[in-house]
Amino acid sequence: MMTKIKKPFFVFNPKSYLYGEELLKLAQKADEMAAKYPEITVMVTVPFADISNIANQTENLIVTAQHIDGITPGRGIGHVLPESVYYAGARAVFLNHAERPLTLTELTKSMQRAQELGIETIVCADSLAEARAIANLKPTAILCEPTELIGTGQTSDESYITATNQVIKEVDENILVMQAAGISTPEDVYRTMKLGADGTGCTSGITNADSPIQMLEEMIVALNQAYQERG
Amino acid sequence: MMTKIKKPFFVFNPKSYLYGEELLKLAQKADEMAAKYPEITVMVTVPFADISNIANQTENLIVTAQHIDGITPGRGIGHVLPESVYYAGARAVFLNHAERPLTLTELTKSMQRAQELGIETIVCADSLAEARAIANLKPTAILCEPTELIGTGQTSDESYITATNQVIKEVDENILVMQAAGISTPEDVYRTMKLGADGTGCTSGITNADSPIQMLEEMIVALNQAYQERG
Amino acid sequence: MMTKIKKPFFVFNPKSYLYGEELLKLAQKADEMAAKYPEITVMVTVPFADISNIANQTENLIVTAQHIDGITPGRGIGHVLPESVYYAGARAVFLNHAERPLTLTELTKSMQRAQELGIETIVCADSLAEARAIANLKPTAILCEPTELIGTGQTSDESYITATNQVIKEVDENILVMQAAGISTPEDVYRTMKLGADGTGCTSGITNADSPIQMLEEMIVALNQAYQERG
Amino acid sequence: MMTKIKKPFFVFNPKSYLYGEELLKLAQKADEMAAKYPEITVMVTVPFADISNIANQTENLIVTAQHIDGITPGRGIGHVLPESVYYAGARAVFLNHAERPLTLTELTKSMQRAQELGIETIVCADSLAEARAIANLKPTAILCEPTELIGTGQTSDESYITATNQVIKEVDENILVMQAAGISTPEDVYRTMKLGADGTGCTSGITNADSPIQMLEEMIVALNQAYQERG
Repeated sequence: MMTKIKKPFFVFNPKSYLYGEELLKLAQKADEMAAKYPEITVMVTVPFADISNIANQTENLIVTAQHIDGITPGRGIGHVLPESVYYAGARAVFLNHAERPLTLTELTKSMQRAQELGIETIVCADSLAEARAIANLKPTAILCEPTELIGTGQTSDESYITATNQVIKEVDENILVMQAAGISTPEDVYRTMKLGADGTGCTSGITNADSPIQMLEEMIVALNQAYQERG
Repeated sequence: MMTKIKKPFFVFNPKSYLYGEELLKLAQKADEMAAKYPEITVMVTVPFADISNIANQTENLIVTAQHIDGITPGRGIGHVLPESVYYAGARAVFLNHAERPLTLTELTKSMQRAQELGIETIVCADSLAEARAIANLKPTAILCEPTELIGTGQTSDESYITATNQVIKEVDENILVMQAAGISTPEDVYRTMKLGADGTGCTSGITNADSPIQMLEEMIVALNQAYQERG
Repeated sequence: MMTKIKKPFFVFNPKSYLYGEELLKLAQKADEMAAKYPEITVMVTVPFADISNIANQTENLIVTAQHIDGITPGRGIGHVLPESVYYAGARAVFLNHAERPLTLTELTKSMQRAQELGIETIVCADSLAEARAIANLKPTAILCEPTELIGTGQTSDESYITATNQVIKEVDENILVMQAAGISTPEDVYRTMKLGADGTGCTSGITNADSPIQMLEEMIVALNQAYQERG
Repeated sequence: MMTKIKKPFFVFNPKSYLYGEELLKLAQKADEMAAKYPEITVMVTVPFADISNIANQTENLIVTAQHIDGITPGRGIGHVLPESVYYAGARAVFLNHAERPLTLTELTKSMQRAQELGIETIVCADSLAEARAIANLKPTAILCEPTELIGTGQTSDESYITATNQVIKEVDENILVMQAAGISTPEDVYRTMKLGADGTGCTSGITNADSPIQMLEEMIVALNQAYQERG
């Protein structure tokens, strides 16, 4: 079981598209790729109830929860208990995705619980202002999807990535920057990594591909190539 | 694996107090009790990431999720995918608990997804008005904790249980009525069942007992006795 | 100040499109129409901070709040205090709109507070199942926008309106039924009322019209005509 | 109408305890005090539907909204439109109070709307980590109630205030720091201001006082004295 996110990293993020056998098959392919390219951290996000199944049948991935709540064992029926998720095998977690936004207090508590248990955090930011605020909370990584840049003239990938990288690294150069807006082909992965992202990832570009397994492989190959070329 | 809630039923509801090994031990005790008293439906609510572990190691329980979201496979990172929960082995779900309240639209959609997958629903009601509204949505069971009755003169257990039973059965006599407010001893279980509940359950009365295993057993014995005596 | 919703009724619902002077001008036009057609109840929904201004300068409308919270005077900074809204002049309120959904407990409490103060309630329902549940909570009116009927073959206005009318009136024939999905012309108003709605309303069909004042007038005229013809 | 928060400042924050006539009477007393001590900024938070009434009948206060949503005129029924609140006379707003927490994205958008309209922002922080993150979003003021310091040995008022002041001023020395945890007497106001707060405030210490008007006056006098003594 892998536990530490290092750059470069790739996140296969099937959200709620996959579960059970189909998810397992792709996670095992990702696991195989992670063994083949040991310098790349490979993460797979999985639904809560699939975590133990995936963690038990893979070795080289960081199995990643899609959310945790900032609670300690006690009350809280229906919430996502960090200890349960960790026990099942997750070692990283996404927080504050636009599909599951958190209040600032919830985010702060969730991050604190993750840190106490040794769960790495990838926190999502909607804007440059949010990215700066989140960087001050010391996550492992920030996923940048600053919608404000769209349509402002700063739409080129390069300025977009440069702006978010700069804001985050200025606060703490150890925070990893994930750029994943609109990644749907291996070429997107290659270009994004060449522009300076520490990691990237993909959802429907893989799940909707003719061969999801082949697409997953090609993206990891592209990421590796771009990162090697960056030197 | 059991799949159908019948009366009388007992819910061990450790909420987020337990996970992992400790939860498994108590679930296995509950499983043993369920085998010993086959006429009683025994349910255990478990954190999402513990579902498959508990379901794989028990036979006679209905493993019960603490919540599901009303989503179909697709987007929705961080939400609780019904298919994932079902695949892991849950066959019932609590919805709309005061600790995890749902909008009416979310509740309706979650109940619809549960029905499509064959997951039984226990929906929580805070008041008589809510219990009536929920009964019209056709859940398997309603957990009644009508705070409005407290301090109104209708505080005796009997009038409380009678009022909620009547409201619910008037809408649909097949909906099971769970009464579990303040259950902390086997005597509470006995008295509540004698007063006409279809089922009951307990959280901290078990998890905080000197011997949770013994308390769990005594409560199920008390439930059985009361139900036998009701004839 | 009008206080009681009677059929037929028309709701000008500018949501958050209008405020201040522009809202006042249209509300005054609606007020004039309400005076001209005294058998029609005319309602205008207004932002919270505009309520007193509109209520002070109109006479024949029911000034309608866009939401209230189910709280009593006390804590609750940032919530919408029913007493404040009533004091400012609102005598009706929309609840549970898809843009401001409520948990079942919140909805029940808000409706109770409205009833205590003499504020009429228009509660929104997303589906037939919701409409039935809400009818059991005894609102003054239900706004039906059952998305489930769209694209199911039951898309004709008539079956749509018939189904919701039937479900609601079956529970309580005194509950008023508002049908307002997709109303954008006076013809839409006419047809909807002819099909048996107790009331209807419009948002962007008025606010985006070349002449909002003229559109508002034409819709109220169309409503009156349809209702007269129904006899 | 006052529009700019300067130090020292005092916030009378009756939350949802008051509305209508009773609120107006106290707001007018606060207005009188503000005229008497022109070097002090006096703010009164009021329910949304009371804003215009209070703003129309006072001159020297900053009438303060209890929340705004980060929306522009358009859809959004039931939300708090910034333009409506501004039109009614509010020139400041509380955001992210523990009783009305916001997602980070909502907070960022609300602050942006406030800035566009010229509404000053007082943003609430639950912890040092939150205070730092919020300071990076550039509010006018931060209300600190860091629960984490309670019971940690750092419980003395002085270390508490020093820690939060330092964290915030380090990010931007122009952000005002409001300390208001547990203020219930004029002595509390005096001590808090002497310890270096830029402003303070009170809720139930005033609303539950034998004479709210007298308590309000004594607190403002105490604030003035402490600030004069600080030099």
